[in-house]
Amino acid sequence: MSPRASGAGTRLQKADPAAGCPGFRFAGVAAGIKKTGHRDVALLATDAPAAAAAVFTQNRVKAAPVLLSAEHLRQHKKLRGIVINSGNANACTGPQGMRDAKEMATRAAAALGSRAEELLVASTGVIGNRLPMAAVRSGIAAAGAELRADGFADFADAILTTDKRAKIAALRTRIDGSPVTLLGCTKGAGMIMPNMATTLTFVVTDASCTPAQLQTATARAVAPTFNAIAVDGDTSTNDTLAVMASGLAGGGGAATAAGAGALTEALSALLSDLAQQLMTDGEGVHHVVSIEVRRAASRSAAAKIAQRVAISPLVKTAIAGADPNWGRILCAVGNAGVAIDPDRLALSIGDVATVARGSVRPNWDEAAARAAMQAPRYKLVVDLGMGEHTASYLACDLSHDYVSINASYRS
Amino acid sequence: MSPRASGAGTRLQKADPAAGCPGFRFAGVAAGIKKTGHRDVALLATDAPAAAAAVFTQNRVKAAPVLLSAEHLRQHKKLRGIVINSGNANACTGPQGMRDAKEMATRAAAALGSRAEELLVASTGVIGNRLPMAAVRSGIAAAGAELRADGFADFADAILTTDKRAKIAALRTRIDGSPVTLLGCTKGAGMIMPNMATTLTFVVTDASCTPAQLQTATARAVAPTFNAIAVDGDTSTNDTLAVMASGLAGGGGAATAAGAGALTEALSALLSDLAQQLMTDGEGVHHVVSIEVRRAASRSAAAKIAQRVAISPLVKTAIAGADPNWGRILCAVGNAGVAIDPDRLALSIGDVATVARGSVRPNWDEAAARAAMQAPRYKLVVDLGMGEHTASYLACDLSHDYVSINASYRS
Repeated sequence: MSPRASGAGTRLQKADPAAGCPGFRFAGVAAGIKKTGHRDVALLATDAPAAAAAVFTQNRVKAAPVLLSAEHLRQHKKLRGIVINSGNANACTGPQGMRDAKEMATRAAAALGSRAEELLVASTGVIGNRLPMAAVRSGIAAAGAELRADGFADFADAILTTDKRAKIAALRTRIDGSPVTLLGCTKGAGMIMPNMATTLTFVVTDASCTPAQLQTATARAVAPTFNAIAVDGDTSTNDTLAVMASGLAGGGGAATAAGAGALTEALSALLSDLAQQLMTDGEGVHHVVSIEVRRAASRSAAAKIAQRVAISPLVKTAIAGADPNWGRILCAVGNAGVAIDPDRLALSIGDVATVARGSVRPNWDEAAARAAMQAPRYKLVVDLGMGEHTASYLACDLSHDYVSINASYRS
Repeated sequence: MSPRASGAGTRLQKADPAAGCPGFRFAGVAAGIKKTGHRDVALLATDAPAAAAAVFTQNRVKAAPVLLSAEHLRQHKKLRGIVINSGNANACTGPQGMRDAKEMATRAAAALGSRAEELLVASTGVIGNRLPMAAVRSGIAAAGAELRADGFADFADAILTTDKRAKIAALRTRIDGSPVTLLGCTKGAGMIMPNMATTLTFVVTDASCTPAQLQTATARAVAPTFNAIAVDGDTSTNDTLAVMASGLAGGGGAATAAGAGALTEALSALLSDLAQQLMTDGEGVHHVVSIEVRRAASRSAAAKIAQRVAISPLVKTAIAGADPNWGRILCAVGNAGVAIDPDRLALSIGDVATVARGSVRPNWDEAAARAAMQAPRYKLVVDLGMGEHTASYLACDLSHDYVSINASYRS
């Protein structure tokens, strides 16, 4: 995962989110779903049917808006917009929940002059309560009246729940010679958020591509970014990551292999930026740690081990305590269900070489390792000595704040 | 899992651990491995070669004593004893660690007048440090001189690390008409223990059985007991559960199907008792919760779901806060990777019917559910409505104490 979009390649440049993205308008309004009075209805509209792609939660218990959006995407690969509410997840709400999700699509379509099945719908917030539809209806109507090309900040604000701040990224690149914009936002630090840790992510671009090309680029870009942040292992009923492309940038776009590669690269950089903002913004997170697994026999072996280390409660509490407890890390490596040779394992904590050939190095600098773990960002590098494949995950600490937030959320 | 050995069947009766078990002698001594001066070397000796069976950690990083014991068990299905040290895990110690484990077997064999390869070896404690062999040698010699038929309490005490108390169970039953004794002890609440949460469990019986029959009974008895306690998901480098049978009870023993069934039942009851003691004794544990999954399409589906709920950090923090957050439980059910129909899900918290057909019941008694979750022991019952299979897991809370203990363990 690249540290920032600006570092992912010389063709990628940070852009101003307020400049928007050709072909899209945005709004975010306060409709009274949240008791706090904060914005809670977001609307995204395209000027014309746009290519759409999405990935949804793998949880078998899927909220109504997830089921509805997946169905709409199967029917229509070009869509007209996305409607979102925060403050209520519309999950575990039975047939009424599906009727409410459909009404959200219908109301948003009326505001946009499109058909309901051309909309994606997303919800985030408390599980198990029926949506307050009077507020949702008025919010959608108000958002429809406020759609603006420069409204992305309001949109990004309206999807938040317990997030401390909006998480937005924008960049410019060139695809097949044409300048292209990508603009995205995300909410919900999976690690920490109570209420199912829902992650919602929305990206728009003016790149030229077919829906199939966009889905391929999205799936490839998600794997090393949003699917490589080690939350607490719980996956929400509502997770949704959607990308829409207006095609207004023109040119060949993703039609060639080079163009498709450039689109994937740009999307990966944008999602990497957003994923890191999401981890850093989590309540209770004091350390964001990159778990890098090197010289694995396969890419999937590397990824499994990186994930196992990243979600180990014993590793995460050691991170919280800045304790260079290398034994726990090796133990987690061994727990990944992947064939390894323990006698080849090496480990570095930050830049401190700690383990070699499966045992702690004589005279390793424990004080330096402890100091490295005080930093808000650092790396744990596991070298398997088995092959040539690499994978990394972002992990965070398991802190007292996590327990406090999640033990008392509904009380 | 039966609540107690006494409840598992009328043929099972609690017994006095101090009465020992025919064919076995025990000792536990303080050899100076632990700085506290507590007992840290345990020795178990058989009067004659005894059938042996064991299950070991599935972690790919296995401590030297685990590798050595597995090899000894492959070579010899009848063994003469077990030697254990606490205070040092002899894990991640390289070739020297294996030499030290072999020397433990050799020294114990000398004390028992047997061969080294007739011994099992187990260690638990800090990872990555070489065993203090001078202390280990003197401890084994002292233990050899103290072996007594009524020495089980000392033995059980000497295997502890940060456990608050020894965990012992004994019962009597009849197998093929003959009275049989089972006597066991365990250490290391997986959930809470720092230092890799090693679990060591040792059981002796005078039942008559072949090594193969004993291994089958052990594997069957472990599945719903020690393999159904939901620790934090981390598996130690040193976990060992060993069972030895002297055969002195006589009779047909496990030679018939009925006898084998009786042995499995008795062993299951004993291990169930020990597993519950282990959960209850964990530092930082305030609630031990039985996660029961009913009407699953298969036994493995039920077990996967029960385990997923039991290890979910969001469920465990809800348990810590006595928060009847049913949405988190349904979310964890959906995350088990098992096909379910969300619209058939039902959930009870204690005796409080909370969810039916995938949605919260109108007018459910939230106050009663909250009260049920204040208890030190209660059940969460998930009904899938998919079939006829059932499984359960024991879970516990993820508390501030867990974070405190594990964030500062080595500091």
